[in-house]
Amino acid sequence: MARHRPPSFSMLREMHVHNRKKLQNAMAEKLESIGQRLAGVVLLQGGEERYRDCTDHLELFRQESFFAYLFGVREPGFYAAIDIATGQSILFVPRLDPDYAVWLGEIHPPSFFKEKYGVDAAYYVDEMVSVLRKFDASLYLLHGLNTDSNRYCKPATFQGIEGFEQDTKVLHPVLSECRVIKSELELELLRYVNEVSSAAHVKVMRSAQPGLKEYQLESTFQHYCYMEGGCRECSYTCICATGENSAVLHYGHAAAPNDQIASDGAMALLDMGAEYHFYGSDITCSFPVNGKFTEKQRLIYTGVLEAQKAVISKMKPGISWVAMHKLAETKILEALKTAGCLKGNVEDMMENRLGAVFMPHGLGHFLGLDTHDPGGYPQGMSRINERGLVSLRTVRTLEAGMLITVEPGCYFIDAVLDPALEDPVLSRFLNREAIDKFRGFGGVRLEDDVIVTSDGCENLTNCPREISDVEDVMAGGPWPRT
Amino acid sequence: MARHRPPSFSMLREMHVHNRKKLQNAMAEKLESIGQRLAGVVLLQGGEERYRDCTDHLELFRQESFFAYLFGVREPGFYAAIDIATGQSILFVPRLDPDYAVWLGEIHPPSFFKEKYGVDAAYYVDEMVSVLRKFDASLYLLHGLNTDSNRYCKPATFQGIEGFEQDTKVLHPVLSECRVIKSELELELLRYVNEVSSAAHVKVMRSAQPGLKEYQLESTFQHYCYMEGGCRECSYTCICATGENSAVLHYGHAAAPNDQIASDGAMALLDMGAEYHFYGSDITCSFPVNGKFTEKQRLIYTGVLEAQKAVISKMKPGISWVAMHKLAETKILEALKTAGCLKGNVEDMMENRLGAVFMPHGLGHFLGLDTHDPGGYPQGMSRINERGLVSLRTVRTLEAGMLITVEPGCYFIDAVLDPALEDPVLSRFLNREAIDKFRGFGGVRLEDDVIVTSDGCENLTNCPREISDVEDVMAGGPWPRT
Ligand SMILES: [Mn+2]
Ligand SMILES: [Mn+2]
Repeated sequence: MARHRPPSFSMLREMHVHNRKKLQNAMAEKLESIGQRLAGVVLLQGGEERYRDCTDHLELFRQESFFAYLFGVREPGFYAAIDIATGQSILFVPRLDPDYAVWLGEIHPPSFFKEKYGVDAAYYVDEMVSVLRKFDASLYLLHGLNTDSNRYCKPATFQGIEGFEQDTKVLHPVLSECRVIKSELELELLRYVNEVSSAAHVKVMRSAQPGLKEYQLESTFQHYCYMEGGCRECSYTCICATGENSAVLHYGHAAAPNDQIASDGAMALLDMGAEYHFYGSDITCSFPVNGKFTEKQRLIYTGVLEAQKAVISKMKPGISWVAMHKLAETKILEALKTAGCLKGNVEDMMENRLGAVFMPHGLGHFLGLDTHDPGGYPQGMSRINERGLVSLRTVRTLEAGMLITVEPGCYFIDAVLDPALEDPVLSRFLNREAIDKFRGFGGVRLEDDVIVTSDGCENLTNCPREISDVEDVMAGGPWPRT
Repeated sequence: MARHRPPSFSMLREMHVHNRKKLQNAMAEKLESIGQRLAGVVLLQGGEERYRDCTDHLELFRQESFFAYLFGVREPGFYAAIDIATGQSILFVPRLDPDYAVWLGEIHPPSFFKEKYGVDAAYYVDEMVSVLRKFDASLYLLHGLNTDSNRYCKPATFQGIEGFEQDTKVLHPVLSECRVIKSELELELLRYVNEVSSAAHVKVMRSAQPGLKEYQLESTFQHYCYMEGGCRECSYTCICATGENSAVLHYGHAAAPNDQIASDGAMALLDMGAEYHFYGSDITCSFPVNGKFTEKQRLIYTGVLEAQKAVISKMKPGISWVAMHKLAETKILEALKTAGCLKGNVEDMMENRLGAVFMPHGLGHFLGLDTHDPGGYPQGMSRINERGLVSLRTVRTLEAGMLITVEPGCYFIDAVLDPALEDPVLSRFLNREAIDKFRGFGGVRLEDDVIVTSDGCENLTNCPREISDVEDVMAGGPWPRT
């Protein structure tokens, strides 16, 4: 009955088999390159269910992403191993209390999960030590820095681990890199979540009207994704901002919960994406709540759209992401100059990093099992310590198979504008009166999910972007165009 | 634009003022009763935002319930205090990084939160030690057992706490007891979430039809609650079970995610409730997916309905909840006897605790800021170690102001039936052939949220319950009846 048809579970299982094979090959290559023998077992610990504070309120479990990438296991409390030499994959299943059958459902034996997830063997968690002993080799555990959160993931741990040789250095960079380059099977899934999310955005655009609460747009989005696409969760908390809220980059959290009224004449900036089987999407649409762009809205929107189109037209293997960020800045600065907000030479502005005043975030980020997928800064690569560029979540050169968001934005943020107007260098370019007219305007962001191909790129997102398309779809016109 | 009108924020603020006053009085009374001087400061630590695993994926923050009860604070990272002698209330606000303004929104000073939450004073968290020192008194910290989760809540902690006298024994039972008896203002809010959730259940009933996925019913419920009632979250993960899944009491979690197809001829059991401003609802409807009861469905449903009606008709102050549980069991056993599943004398069955074979859970639980609200087993009261009764979340005598769910159920659970059929005592009552005909039937549960009044009770839930009403509403008839 749903409008969209998700990938089959057997396709998803195959995808994880492929992900494991890829890791096995990459680990073998790595061990060879550092002169270690082809032996050892990759061991990961899956996530655990959590309760809210001291209560028995069980939070909906979502598997840890590295574990999900390799095994696709939806249940909590698992461990899993891959033997690097042979590729043999093993799941370790928690032994459940008989009460589970009454409260939570049928209790399945390890053989059930072996079949379900397509691994080579499955045992109970309490058999793990004896099973792992047979391999007589080091455990490669996952430990490393997430460069978006600046926090480290925790290596697997279990009673008896002290009896094994452990390595916590080799695995993380290798596994992170596997996730950076998407396979054809992953792409199929990623296309699906983008298809659902794009259609949901269109649904929301058509429902928008002055007087609605922002959360009603959020609810409309979530309902479409779940009802028509089977996506139970979003990749991240929906950002449903209208008016000046659209200048708050991560609006929508508990302290600013999408609860304002969308007013006539305001812009909406909706950053929302569905997740399916752990893989997410990340899409932003900006449009006038009442369906018709004002002249001011048109000026800013056009700058952002030109930036997005310019970047996507250039994306292909070998292109520097930093160059793309700068290209987007240039387009936005040009539009702001046209709008009368800026004066002077755009090249000078770029040299003085003026772009960051209007786009304080990076142009985009890797996307996959996490909204900010890992691998943006592999070992040896580091952030560029310049205004705006420091916010980039990656500075890598594009490669085929990278999925990256292209999300230029232009915002009028008092907390950024006021210091800039006081800054002796930046203020030279700023036309205070014109800028003041945009105070309270909020911002515009356009975000598409784009995969780099062998000779260019493919845009997975399909939302109305041209002003004429946005106005037409909001007036009830068809989408996609046929 | 929403169909339901939530309580105003100023009413909610007043509710929390009242909650604090109630605690102050209760603490004063307690201190007097144990011969301690009327002095000291209640200090609570609010919840913190959490990230998913090692990533920067921020989970939507939901305040810890005790903190929410007293202060209604929606933002993370707070502390709060109440001076027991004077009732003075103080919020301690985290000092935010200037970057917050760009990413997460306007940074407000303590005075903003003093006004917003109606406390007497507000400071920064880093001023807490010096502010608390002025009181020159013990800190009463929250530490105690949650009798549903069997886990302890963690007392507040901060740098410098070692300089204060601390008591972790007095506060928890007093504060838990405050939450047990609902005030008129709390009731207003609880009526609201019940109104929204009841209407959402009716919406779902009308949308149900064979061929839908269970999660489409869940999505319909959530969308109604958010879109029409402003309820962003549900009180708990939706249990959307059809067919034999309805015998899994807590179906719907990640390992059994409401993903089966609702089939023609099956029953649906939908246990779902919205939350608004931290207060929840907990409602279960059971109905045939195709809108028409079969004879078998009618037999079981009638037993559960008779149980629910019998209990609600008896509820008033002074009544024992254990007696209500047994009353419900009796009604269900009678219906099962009528259905031919049981033979013998119902009194004998009761004496042998046969009811627990078909209703393995307790009749109901306190409800409020948590779905299983605290206070079910105050100090000195303990579980009854008999089959079925051991599952009761409270064994208390009813008092005016208690909000409790009335949720009798009747299930055919292989994991319970098979051992019962082998049991020499229980099997005497069981008619194996008749019971086998109900294998795969699943179960029926009807759950209303009922407040005990001075001379009876008030049912906050308003869903179709009579078979004729259910069939009529599912066929498009009006609800509520007028
Ligand atoms: Mn993004
Ligand atoms: Mn309940």
